[in-house]
Amino acid sequence: MTAALTHLGAQGEANMVDVGDKVETTRTAVAEGFVSMRPQTLEMILAGNAKKGDVLGTARIAGIMAAKKTHELVPLCHPLLLTKVSVDIEPDHSLPGLKVTALARVTGKTGVEMEALTAASVACLTIYDMAKAVDRAMVISGIRLVEKTGGKSGDYKAGS
Amino acid sequence: MTAALTHLGAQGEANMVDVGDKVETTRTAVAEGFVSMRPQTLEMILAGNAKKGDVLGTARIAGIMAAKKTHELVPLCHPLLLTKVSVDIEPDHSLPGLKVTALARVTGKTGVEMEALTAASVACLTIYDMAKAVDRAMVISGIRLVEKTGGKSGDYKAGS
Amino acid sequence: MTAALTHLGAQGEANMVDVGDKVETTRTAVAEGFVSMRPQTLEMILAGNAKKGDVLGTARIAGIMAAKKTHELVPLCHPLLLTKVSVDIEPDHSLPGLKVTALARVTGKTGVEMEALTAASVACLTIYDMAKAVDRAMVISGIRLVEKTGGKSGDYKAGS
Amino acid sequence: MTAALTHLGAQGEANMVDVGDKVETTRTAVAEGFVSMRPQTLEMILAGNAKKGDVLGTARIAGIMAAKKTHELVPLCHPLLLTKVSVDIEPDHSLPGLKVTALARVTGKTGVEMEALTAASVACLTIYDMAKAVDRAMVISGIRLVEKTGGKSGDYKAGS
Amino acid sequence: MTAALTHLGAQGEANMVDVGDKVETTRTAVAEGFVSMRPQTLEMILAGNAKKGDVLGTARIAGIMAAKKTHELVPLCHPLLLTKVSVDIEPDHSLPGLKVTALARVTGKTGVEMEALTAASVACLTIYDMAKAVDRAMVISGIRLVEKTGGKSGDYKAGS
Amino acid sequence: MTAALTHLGAQGEANMVDVGDKVETTRTAVAEGFVSMRPQTLEMILAGNAKKGDVLGTARIAGIMAAKKTHELVPLCHPLLLTKVSVDIEPDHSLPGLKVTALARVTGKTGVEMEALTAASVACLTIYDMAKAVDRAMVISGIRLVEKTGGKSGDYKAGS
Repeated sequence: MTAALTHLGAQGEANMVDVGDKVETTRTAVAEGFVSMRPQTLEMILAGNAKKGDVLGTARIAGIMAAKKTHELVPLCHPLLLTKVSVDIEPDHSLPGLKVTALARVTGKTGVEMEALTAASVACLTIYDMAKAVDRAMVISGIRLVEKTGGKSGDYKAGS
Repeated sequence: MTAALTHLGAQGEANMVDVGDKVETTRTAVAEGFVSMRPQTLEMILAGNAKKGDVLGTARIAGIMAAKKTHELVPLCHPLLLTKVSVDIEPDHSLPGLKVTALARVTGKTGVEMEALTAASVACLTIYDMAKAVDRAMVISGIRLVEKTGGKSGDYKAGS
Repeated sequence: MTAALTHLGAQGEANMVDVGDKVETTRTAVAEGFVSMRPQTLEMILAGNAKKGDVLGTARIAGIMAAKKTHELVPLCHPLLLTKVSVDIEPDHSLPGLKVTALARVTGKTGVEMEALTAASVACLTIYDMAKAVDRAMVISGIRLVEKTGGKSGDYKAGS
Repeated sequence: MTAALTHLGAQGEANMVDVGDKVETTRTAVAEGFVSMRPQTLEMILAGNAKKGDVLGTARIAGIMAAKKTHELVPLCHPLLLTKVSVDIEPDHSLPGLKVTALARVTGKTGVEMEALTAASVACLTIYDMAKAVDRAMVISGIRLVEKTGGKSGDYKAGS
Repeated sequence: MTAALTHLGAQGEANMVDVGDKVETTRTAVAEGFVSMRPQTLEMILAGNAKKGDVLGTARIAGIMAAKKTHELVPLCHPLLLTKVSVDIEPDHSLPGLKVTALARVTGKTGVEMEALTAASVACLTIYDMAKAVDRAMVISGIRLVEKTGGKSGDYKAGS
Repeated sequence: MTAALTHLGAQGEANMVDVGDKVETTRTAVAEGFVSMRPQTLEMILAGNAKKGDVLGTARIAGIMAAKKTHELVPLCHPLLLTKVSVDIEPDHSLPGLKVTALARVTGKTGVEMEALTAASVACLTIYDMAKAVDRAMVISGIRLVEKTGGKSGDYKAGS
């Protein structure tokens, strides 16, 4: 079996993987996450949004900025030159709540899964922050990698 | 109804709430989160941990450091002087996966829910990062506030 | 004459002023700044804003987040616990362009002039960034302290 | 008309532009800014500078370091590998005050206008900070792009 | 024996010490460090300094700014509101080289030893950076706490 | 003599060196540092490490994360895309104390000496922080470049 925890060194200590010999390719990752809340909380956010866009707009900006901080947050992530980050948020009335989708892209030697996942996580945290005065019981869930393309390990698409 | 989205100004624009007149009290918040994974991934992490402690140790450190960055990540959070942050991680074989519990405490004018939630989120992201080479389908879920004490809005304890 | 450049030490070297003996009071500062642009650029931003609020909303968030980074940007500024930051942006058709007003408040030992000025500056830079594809000749000007209250040196109000 | 606000997506939401397909070229941008002040303030800074260089030296360092933080401050800026940043400050007795000129250069897929403008802005803010004890009425103005070279959109030189 | 590694929890895991019940007092720490170099390197720096002050001035600013980042660098340090930081650098011809002395002060619940040590370390690193083109064999040494005052554990003064 | 302090401009002001015309090559640097302490302190750390690995594990993570922050700490360092950072710590009973070895690698236009030195320094600071409750007299010393490869200026290996 060749699969192993790649961040552990010969003696098991945590270290950054050497990506120096990896090829520079275009790599894209898409991640998603959900914030479930009371129906009234969702209505209040969406009503505010219809007028001013601020909860969703703020969460979107927070997610984009967080993607650029991924290597400062996740200890063994490599710094990289993101060429694109986008965060979309849409209501999911079946939760009820909000669904966050984040995309990160790079032309580089290493993938951007963590950047997409970090953007989604921080957008969810920002939604929580802006609505917690009316609903402390919100739950963030379903943060996962939806798909990735590019890189030696091949493309990936999550099952549904 | 007095409850409202406190971060929206008179014209609905996003702004930091004024906490200048709030009382300085000791405030504590506990948050939790889960990373579900394949049983073999959990075994691999725990085996590594038994010997070297690095995946769990690294995630714990990442969570603690992220708590201190909360106001840089969540746009409308106030900076504050955390007096304690702790992150604990334990296996949950029923998932199977890992359960992260984060505690944040401050003597200050505003609560530390976001600090605890941010610590839990980033610890989960770090676990994902360190094990993603063997299991890209891990899912982060159940990130929520477990309890908070201190502050005018009263204590809170999540239902189970 | 007692007034002097307070950040210079006995031998003229740059150092942080000691504020340890200053009294903790509520201190507020308001700063402003302007971005002048072609009339069509202003129309385009305002039209976008009427629909989605994004240029102005993004600049507002950027200004608020920058206020929290002031002590990382301005070498001799003290870190402080901002209790409130707000950024407002309104059109000024006489420029034509946009007027940014930023308010910062703290209960602390030192003033928040630099935090308000930094918020205004970065909001202006963000407006430039988001509209530069259509108008590279925009100019940021009139960044100044409008008023401050609290602290030993007394209140200040700029002439008009 | 093809010119449009490039940071707005199809539904008008703010997002980073995708620069993945842009060509890597050497790109340079020069920006300037001014701090106007009372004549005595200028004399005091220049006299201090003649002996120790600290106000101007500190502002220069602050500007250079801020250029490297541009993507953390301006939400939709891409991170990039600056190959050079320089900040020059000279007296302008006609203001009276100081003129700041900042240059940023990169070999990359996107321009460095924001890096040069951010360097100039933060150098001006630092001058204000270090002299505000003697002159709160200083004004920062004339922050603009002076010229840029490299990149698909062509060279640019501001009118005088 | 009651002395123990205070950052280790009951199960030995790394966590921030709880300082919530500590008293707010004025706490000061002084640290020092040395950069030894070839005599010609020292002459070159001092000659440059006599004219422009830039190597020493830049290192001083870097040390002050680093003190404010201590809690971002040292994982278990608490954030705190430094009321003063100063960094002094003087030649030590017996090394030959430069001696850096850093002072940090706070009114707070926890000491500032790490802030003073971090300021000294980063000032030394900056000296190395600015002179490494002429002398790669420089060595940074003798980084230690010189004295501390304030706080429950009592004053401390290093032996000479 | 062509060697000179490369960070000083024509008028002696501090500025970043222009590396735009340098060739992209693989560059590696190794740095080391030492923390000397009382024998009992070393025993306590190693005993803790045998069980939980936390002091050494935390210091290793801190060093790796600090390497990624080098350009934020050392004013004239260029940002760069580290492809690998590792930090190893081993006991040196002759001190007695701990020896830290840090390696940094990049494929880029400029060297990584400062990244390796910064990683070593911050790992040493973290060891000090975690053990200072039992031994305030620890001293950090011997921080130096051990070797570097790649780049125009040629390979370098420190004398022993």
